[in-house]
Amino acid sequence: MKDALSQGEFGLIDQIRRQFGDLTHEGMTGIGDDCAILSQGHGRSWVVTTDMLVEEVHFLRAYISPFDLGYKSLAVNLSDVAAMGVAPCASFLSLALPAGLPEGWIEAFLEGYHALSVRYNVPLLGGDTTSSRDGLSISVTALGQGEDTHLKCRKDARPGDILFVTGRLGDSAQGLHDLLDGRLDSPFIPIHHHPEPAVEEGVWLGSQSAVHAMMDLSDGLASDLRHILKASWVKAEVSVEKIPTRVPVELAVAGGEDYQLLCTVEAQDAPLVQQQFEARFGRPLYPIGRIVEGEPVLIWRQKGQEIHPDWKGFTHF
Amino acid sequence: MKDALSQGEFGLIDQIRRQFGDLTHEGMTGIGDDCAILSQGHGRSWVVTTDMLVEEVHFLRAYISPFDLGYKSLAVNLSDVAAMGVAPCASFLSLALPAGLPEGWIEAFLEGYHALSVRYNVPLLGGDTTSSRDGLSISVTALGQGEDTHLKCRKDARPGDILFVTGRLGDSAQGLHDLLDGRLDSPFIPIHHHPEPAVEEGVWLGSQSAVHAMMDLSDGLASDLRHILKASWVKAEVSVEKIPTRVPVELAVAGGEDYQLLCTVEAQDAPLVQQQFEARFGRPLYPIGRIVEGEPVLIWRQKGQEIHPDWKGFTHF
Repeated sequence: MKDALSQGEFGLIDQIRRQFGDLTHEGMTGIGDDCAILSQGHGRSWVVTTDMLVEEVHFLRAYISPFDLGYKSLAVNLSDVAAMGVAPCASFLSLALPAGLPEGWIEAFLEGYHALSVRYNVPLLGGDTTSSRDGLSISVTALGQGEDTHLKCRKDARPGDILFVTGRLGDSAQGLHDLLDGRLDSPFIPIHHHPEPAVEEGVWLGSQSAVHAMMDLSDGLASDLRHILKASWVKAEVSVEKIPTRVPVELAVAGGEDYQLLCTVEAQDAPLVQQQFEARFGRPLYPIGRIVEGEPVLIWRQKGQEIHPDWKGFTHF
Repeated sequence: MKDALSQGEFGLIDQIRRQFGDLTHEGMTGIGDDCAILSQGHGRSWVVTTDMLVEEVHFLRAYISPFDLGYKSLAVNLSDVAAMGVAPCASFLSLALPAGLPEGWIEAFLEGYHALSVRYNVPLLGGDTTSSRDGLSISVTALGQGEDTHLKCRKDARPGDILFVTGRLGDSAQGLHDLLDGRLDSPFIPIHHHPEPAVEEGVWLGSQSAVHAMMDLSDGLASDLRHILKASWVKAEVSVEKIPTRVPVELAVAGGEDYQLLCTVEAQDAPLVQQQFEARFGRPLYPIGRIVEGEPVLIWRQKGQEIHPDWKGFTHF
């Protein structure tokens, strides 16, 4: 008997997209970007995203503090909103809670979720609470709102664009690696457990018309960039030595959970965007390669030479 | 050590509401109704709801077919949208899938979800898929859209209103009862497994200005009606013999998962609303009692006499 999961996460998403392709609403764009887009008319749209975190798949409850888990549950969703180029404006939280959580656990979880909600003034507008027979499951839906002209989609990369990331890659993956290896004093573990979504960066990049395509890095550059390439039907060349990282490059490109933004910028405007980003945020926007015409293939270069490493992104199956 | 769940589902929701009360956005109303309301300006609003279904808490995978489970996962959310008086317009589906699901299981689940999506033209705009170490978890977010003047909230019941339900209560609870008792040929089990959300009824009742408060019956009349009473700060008198049911009345008032609508209607307009409802839908709108001034207490009457049964609604802890 074939296991229903053998087609993998992206196979299942493709199947759902095909099966539900007969249902559309004017002004709504669904599966295929970090968020769905729902036009509200008058030049503005809502964006909506949802993510599920499951115990022993996305986190180990023995290692992550409830505060960090609450913070992270919202962070991964705000990162998806930011990747659309607009500001988050509301969230919904559903919890399936196993018996026997220690006293204060839920309170600390909610404090972490609340801390990030306060930081970006994102009210919690609803959700669901239930018990669970086994592990803890957390489902968050986040909404954002902004001008249609600020929305950044995966399909808008153009040949000639410069490819940028908003920060260092691989720290989170190194943290997970160290955690699973039992090196519990690793300074990377807190980064894995407490990601900071690039909300202000996303909103600013959204306001720049020179920024074409954008997405957040959640499954690792090697996997995520391919979504932009397929959606835009373009090729990318990435210079491995330009990837900002302080860990082995394989973790930086294939590790996942970076929650930095990846964007493509019109080449002639790229120096100005880079300069203004650094002036505003006090840290660089890192150019790592460029978009070129061609089939959606990701070319890695090291010192100018094409290389063929076996780097794949993270999938949840 | 106090178990964190000992405060119960509604205690936890109250805690969350207090803790997040410092965060608000103009034009957004959150926790406290079937859906949150997000104004889109120009006299229209979005409504948003989310529900989580967890294996062995909300369903037993050995008994419910994957088609029915898919259908029901969306149905319970469309019911919340309908209870606001507006039409559903989009949904999001997240799945945490255990290993070893039989071949075809996911396909059949999606077919059930799709069948209901088609019926009300509700596109699936996104979601998340992941594996699960233990049971199956399903999280659905549904959105609706409509005119502000059509929105029905729990806080708008007024003394003098007549209390109505849109259909028979208790069939689903009888079905669950029979299922747990091993009476697998019970005709009530399919009703428990395949609820029909009152989408058209909700949209029509939303368009009637004589309808004041509305909600859907998911935890049972005894529990759900108290939410309207507290939100509106009114008392209700329900005539037990008027409750439309073909099962023991305790199941009809305390069983849950009816997914009928409960609404309060201006007394002088009630006969016309009742008549037009029946003309339109070919079945009665059932008057079961009335709203009166006073503390939020639910009074049961049998043949005019006040009775004091120990009926409670269903909670998920």
